[in-house]
Amino acid sequence: MGNVPTTVKHCLSYRQIIEEYPWFRSWLQEEKEIVPTRVKIQLIDMLSTTGLCVIEATSFVSSKWVPQMADHTDVAKGIQRVPHVQYPVLTPNIQGFQDAVAAGATEVAVFGSASETFSRRNINCSISESMLRFEEVISAAKDRQIPVRGYVSCALGCPHEGHIEPSQVAEVAKKLYEMGCYEISLGDTIGVGTPGSMFKMLQTVMNDVPISALAVHCHDTYGQALPNILTALQMGVSVVDSAVAGLGGCPYAQGSSGNVSTEDVLYMLHGMGIETGVNLDKVIETGDFICNALGRRTNSKVAQARSRTL
Amino acid sequence: MGNVPTTVKHCLSYRQIIEEYPWFRSWLQEEKEIVPTRVKIQLIDMLSTTGLCVIEATSFVSSKWVPQMADHTDVAKGIQRVPHVQYPVLTPNIQGFQDAVAAGATEVAVFGSASETFSRRNINCSISESMLRFEEVISAAKDRQIPVRGYVSCALGCPHEGHIEPSQVAEVAKKLYEMGCYEISLGDTIGVGTPGSMFKMLQTVMNDVPISALAVHCHDTYGQALPNILTALQMGVSVVDSAVAGLGGCPYAQGSSGNVSTEDVLYMLHGMGIETGVNLDKVIETGDFICNALGRRTNSKVAQARSRTL
Repeated sequence: MGNVPTTVKHCLSYRQIIEEYPWFRSWLQEEKEIVPTRVKIQLIDMLSTTGLCVIEATSFVSSKWVPQMADHTDVAKGIQRVPHVQYPVLTPNIQGFQDAVAAGATEVAVFGSASETFSRRNINCSISESMLRFEEVISAAKDRQIPVRGYVSCALGCPHEGHIEPSQVAEVAKKLYEMGCYEISLGDTIGVGTPGSMFKMLQTVMNDVPISALAVHCHDTYGQALPNILTALQMGVSVVDSAVAGLGGCPYAQGSSGNVSTEDVLYMLHGMGIETGVNLDKVIETGDFICNALGRRTNSKVAQARSRTL
Repeated sequence: MGNVPTTVKHCLSYRQIIEEYPWFRSWLQEEKEIVPTRVKIQLIDMLSTTGLCVIEATSFVSSKWVPQMADHTDVAKGIQRVPHVQYPVLTPNIQGFQDAVAAGATEVAVFGSASETFSRRNINCSISESMLRFEEVISAAKDRQIPVRGYVSCALGCPHEGHIEPSQVAEVAKKLYEMGCYEISLGDTIGVGTPGSMFKMLQTVMNDVPISALAVHCHDTYGQALPNILTALQMGVSVVDSAVAGLGGCPYAQGSSGNVSTEDVLYMLHGMGIETGVNLDKVIETGDFICNALGRRTNSKVAQARSRTL
């Protein structure tokens, strides 16, 4: 496969991220519908049987801001933790971290932004203020030997600022990495990137953070998620974030659509001979379950094609 | 951009194919609705202003089989031919070729298949019988110095036979090339390919046909069209077929969806710094026009995203 490193075939650590955003966005759109806790738990438990090794489970944000996530403790305690599967949870600050630990979390994630404006609107503070909060979380996590993942949003563009310089992304990614995040997930939050901008951005970030510690997190707003992921794989990235049925989105990014669907990513990876250890059929079943529960249509083209040919 | 040949940036001959299938399929589905000739002509005339250098205009198949194309002569004569834009038409046999020439066609295309079963069901003859028909067309075209393009369908899979060996694709492509087709478009008719199978297939075909004479024609059934096109570009292919708004499909391929959308391909190419000379905004406008006329939703994610952010 061209310049895809062959090591990817053997070491691919394939990530499954359940975005919290479907529920978040529902709320913002004043549908006021909150997904029942038992549905969330069943979703995670079904994903646990697919072979995915990482399943982001919930977010310990304030229930005042995100009522959809008010049940984070019940979710974190209610899921059946399968050996060798990680269940990171989002923790925006030390309060969230403490709540997460109390609920049994064994991995957490902090989320920063490469865009100053997006940072202020998304997490209500400047980039440098957010770094102080994260330092507190990461330091507390170190004491408990809890691994921390870092997100950098707007890595290929911002809904407010437009173009984001690769050097800004590198700066935030480097800080998170130096503070102790074991992995940095670079998010194309509004899905505007192309193989061109993905290449340039990764080339820059790779100077500051080893490629083995980088992941990509692509939204499919402009249909570019898969070619962007392919580009990242060719550059040596081996961790890919995705969401079953392509659910998700971003409430702070107008016109943004869901995360790239796990089904479509798996179809591509398997077609490239990359071993993921994930059972595509089981992921499709899980997608059917959550789409039925939410009354939504799947965004996965693979799932759509399969249902047409049944 | 990794191993993308830099020459692509300067020599990209970007093709725009209007699939005949939307009308074909409508008919098969017994909607009996035939797109008015004036709408077809307006569509082609609008595409002529976008900067696309090749616009497939109609198909000279028998109106008995494809009533949607019965107006081929009126379309071929009714369009405003813009200098430096080519308007090839499909010609399945010598009768079709003669009708096309009488209607003023200056380029034609023949369509073969890498799958024996698909050939029989799609054009009612074996692969070798189809080659005899094409030989007659190509020979007549040579006499009139009319260039002929060749299609090979099922290049990455067949709805009836499943896997298609790259060597079968190479054999058909080689025959068409040796008979005199100036370019061979390799079609993933049912959109099942991945960067893995695209790479293997092209690697094999390239042994028999120069890469400069190869084009790719991807359907997006499994969401893989853009990564497959990216793979082809990286291998040196510089001609890409697509359809405005991602219209199209294949009546003989159950579960198949439309061609990759021109808008999404352009967005990717432009983001990679590839010069196409095509105005994306004008293509989006054209997509709006035809989608309104057909009462369909666009399949282009770029067009969808643009309309959400307006």
